[in-house]
Amino acid sequence: MAVSAYKPLNVETLGARLGSVPALRDTLGDPAGWRVREVGDGNLNLVFIVESDAGGLIVKQALPYVRLVGESWPLPLKRSFFEYHALRRQAARDPGRVPEVVHFDESQALIVMEFLTPHVILRHALIEGRMPPKTATDLGLFMARTLFRGSDLSMAARERKADLALFADNVELCDITENLVFTDPYFAAELNRHTSPQLDGLVAQIRADTALKMEAQRLKHVFATSAETLVHGDLHSGSIMVTDDDTRVIDPEFAFYGPMAFDVGMLFANFWMSFFSQRGHEQAGSRSKQRNWLLGVISGTWSTFQAEFERLWMTERNGMLYARSLFEDQGDDAGAAKSLARLMTQLEQDLFGFAGVEIHRRILGLAHNADFETIENEDLRAGCETNALNFGSEIIRRAKNGLTIAAANALARDIEAGGGAGR
Amino acid sequence: MAVSAYKPLNVETLGARLGSVPALRDTLGDPAGWRVREVGDGNLNLVFIVESDAGGLIVKQALPYVRLVGESWPLPLKRSFFEYHALRRQAARDPGRVPEVVHFDESQALIVMEFLTPHVILRHALIEGRMPPKTATDLGLFMARTLFRGSDLSMAARERKADLALFADNVELCDITENLVFTDPYFAAELNRHTSPQLDGLVAQIRADTALKMEAQRLKHVFATSAETLVHGDLHSGSIMVTDDDTRVIDPEFAFYGPMAFDVGMLFANFWMSFFSQRGHEQAGSRSKQRNWLLGVISGTWSTFQAEFERLWMTERNGMLYARSLFEDQGDDAGAAKSLARLMTQLEQDLFGFAGVEIHRRILGLAHNADFETIENEDLRAGCETNALNFGSEIIRRAKNGLTIAAANALARDIEAGGGAGR
Repeated sequence: MAVSAYKPLNVETLGARLGSVPALRDTLGDPAGWRVREVGDGNLNLVFIVESDAGGLIVKQALPYVRLVGESWPLPLKRSFFEYHALRRQAARDPGRVPEVVHFDESQALIVMEFLTPHVILRHALIEGRMPPKTATDLGLFMARTLFRGSDLSMAARERKADLALFADNVELCDITENLVFTDPYFAAELNRHTSPQLDGLVAQIRADTALKMEAQRLKHVFATSAETLVHGDLHSGSIMVTDDDTRVIDPEFAFYGPMAFDVGMLFANFWMSFFSQRGHEQAGSRSKQRNWLLGVISGTWSTFQAEFERLWMTERNGMLYARSLFEDQGDDAGAAKSLARLMTQLEQDLFGFAGVEIHRRILGLAHNADFETIENEDLRAGCETNALNFGSEIIRRAKNGLTIAAANALARDIEAGGGAGR
Repeated sequence: MAVSAYKPLNVETLGARLGSVPALRDTLGDPAGWRVREVGDGNLNLVFIVESDAGGLIVKQALPYVRLVGESWPLPLKRSFFEYHALRRQAARDPGRVPEVVHFDESQALIVMEFLTPHVILRHALIEGRMPPKTATDLGLFMARTLFRGSDLSMAARERKADLALFADNVELCDITENLVFTDPYFAAELNRHTSPQLDGLVAQIRADTALKMEAQRLKHVFATSAETLVHGDLHSGSIMVTDDDTRVIDPEFAFYGPMAFDVGMLFANFWMSFFSQRGHEQAGSRSKQRNWLLGVISGTWSTFQAEFERLWMTERNGMLYARSLFEDQGDDAGAAKSLARLMTQLEQDLFGFAGVEIHRRILGLAHNADFETIENEDLRAGCETNALNFGSEIIRRAKNGLTIAAANALARDIEAGGGAGR
C-alpha cells in the first residue's frame, strides 16, 4: 500500500479506503458487504467495528489530538506505531493474550486487528456485577510473562537496549502519565475535577500532605527512569476485554521501558477502585459477593504472577542479571532463590505506591473511571470515592513498611466496613 | 573531510593524514614541523601527542578491539562517537572542566582535542604522594553540574529521552562494566586475576558470600535500568588530569544514561583505594599526611557536590520532577527541601554499593589499578589489597543502614590502623 497523507477514517469512507487491503478483504470479503460502526469510547482514538457476513475486524486509528479534550491538546500519531510494536512483543511473550494484528499502516496510524466477540470491557463487566472466572489467572500470567521476558533477566542486553531506544520516542504518551498521574492530582491543576463540594475537604487535605507529594514524585522519578522492561503502561480494567472463557489485553499505546511494578500497581488499583465503587451499584441487590471476588482476583492475580515469575526465573533466566554462573553454577541455589524473593518484595513495595497514585488521579485528576462516574447519586459516589482516596493514601504511606497484598486487602475491607483508614 | 575507511594512525602517518585538517593546522602550523608521540597507557585506545613550535594537541583514536586484551576482544569504533557527544554535553554543563574538542572524525573514530599540559593523570600524582589542591572542589562541582543538568530535574523530558535513546546504543561499553564490574569478580571468571596466593583465602570468602553477590547483582540491575542522567561512566582517578590549579575530566567513552550514584561511587572508590595503597608507596617517607588528605578529598568532594546540587535544585529545577507547582508554589518550601534531602540520602546509600564493587573488581577482576600494581613487594601489596577488599565488602554491607561518608572514612582509618573491618 502506498504511503499517503494521514486522514481520519469515518464510517462512510472506511470501506472505500480499506476495501483493497488484502488482510481485510480476506476476512471480510467484498467491501460492498461491510457494515461499519464507530465505537471508540476511550479517551484518544477512533475505533471501528467492521463486519460482514464473513466475519469481523477492528480498525483502530489514532487521532492527532486527545479525543477526551479536543484539538487543543495535540497528540502525535506515532503512538499507533508504539501500540503495534507493543502488541507484537506481547503476542510473542504471552501468545493468545492480545488481539491478533492483521494489518498495520504507519502513515495512517491505523491498526487492523481481530474483532473480539462476545468480549466486553472488564470495567463494564465489573460495574454490572459480573465475575469473569479467568481474570486472575490470565492477567497474572500475562504480567509475569511480558514483564519477565522484556527485562534484563531474559533478553540479551543489546536487544533490550535497542528496544528501549525505540520506545524512548513514545514521549508524549509518557508525558501524559507523568503529569496526569504523578503531579496534577496533587495540586489544583487546570484540568482536574472531583465530586464537589463533597470531596473538597479531603482533596485539600491530600494536596497539603507533603509526605504524599514527595512519595508521588519519588514514584514519578522511578516511572521515568527505571527502564526495567517493556510495560503495557495503561493496564487498567478498561484495557482488558473478557468473556467467561477468555481474557484479552488491549490498547498498549502507552508502552515504554519502565518499572515492572507500574503495570501491576495500576491493575490492582483499578480492582480496588471497583471494590470501593460497588456500593454505588448496589440498587439491584447486594454486592458483597462481588466485593469478595474482587479482592480474591487481586490476591489470585498476585499469586499467579509470583508463581509464573518464579517458573520463568528458574527456567528462562538467560539475561545478564543474577547469572547462573554466580549462583546455581556455584551450588548456591539458595542465593538465586533469595534474590528472587528480594526482587518480589521490592516489586510488592513499589506496586502499592503506583496503585495509590493511580487511585488518586482517577478521582482527583482529568481522567475518571466509569466505576465511580456511573454512580449518579453524588453523595453516594463521594462516599465511595472517599473510601478509595483514603485507601490510596494509606497504601502509599504503608508501602515502605512491608505492606503485603493480603494486608492491603484487609485494609480495604476495613475501610469499606467503616473502620476508617486504620491509622 | 571526506568519509574514508577506518585505518589506525601511527606516528609516521599522522602528519600526512591529518595535516590538511584546518583545526589542527590552525593550532600546529605546517605538518612538516609536527612532533608526534604515542602515549596511550589506557586499556582501549591510541593516544598521540602532536606538538609543534606553535602548540600542541591530543589525537585520540579508538581501536576496533580492547587494547589491554588484544584483537580477540573486538570493541566497536562507535565508542568514539559517544565520547565526543559526552564531551560536548559535559562542556556545556560544567564549562572548562573537560578538554576542548577541536575536531571529530566519526569514520576514523578520532577526536582531536586540547593538549592538557603540564597536567598529569591524578592516579599517578596520588601514587607519587602529591596533593593537588583543587581536586575536591573541581570534582564536586563537576559531578553536581553534569549529573543534575542531565537529569529530569533539569532537562526537558523530551530531550532527555532522545538523548537516552542515542546513548542506549553504547551497548558494548556498558557490557564491559556490567560484566567486569558487577559479575566477573564474584566468581572464577577466565580473565580475572589477583595477587596469589596471598589473597586466595579472602577471594574464596568473597565469592562464597551470597549476600554480597546478591547486592552486586541488585546494583547491576540499578546500573542497567536506572537511566537517571548522563553519567561519565568511568570516573576514576585515571580519567582525571590535574595541575595545582586545574582539574580536567577526560575519557567519557563509557557515557550512558545511568544512576547518578555510579559516578560518585566509582570516584570515591578510587580515592579509598589510593588511601589503602599508600602504605605500599611509603619507602620515601610517611604517607600519613597523604592518607588524611585523601579522606579529606572524599569528604570535601561530597560536601561540594551536595552544596552545588542544592544550589541547582533551588535555582535550576525546571524539569518534570519535584515541580515547583507542588512545593514552592504551594508555600511548601520545606517539602522541596525534604525531597532534596531524601534524594541525597538515597544517593549516599547507592554510592557505597557502587564504590564497594568498584574496589572489588579492581583487585579481583581484569582491570587492576596502578595504585596497587606498582607495589612491587607482593606481600606488601596483598596487605594493602586485603584492607581495601574488606573495606569494600563492609561498605556494601552497611550501605542500607545509613552509612555516611564520615562513617566510611572512619571505617577506612580503622581498617588501615589494623582494627579490622569493625564487624
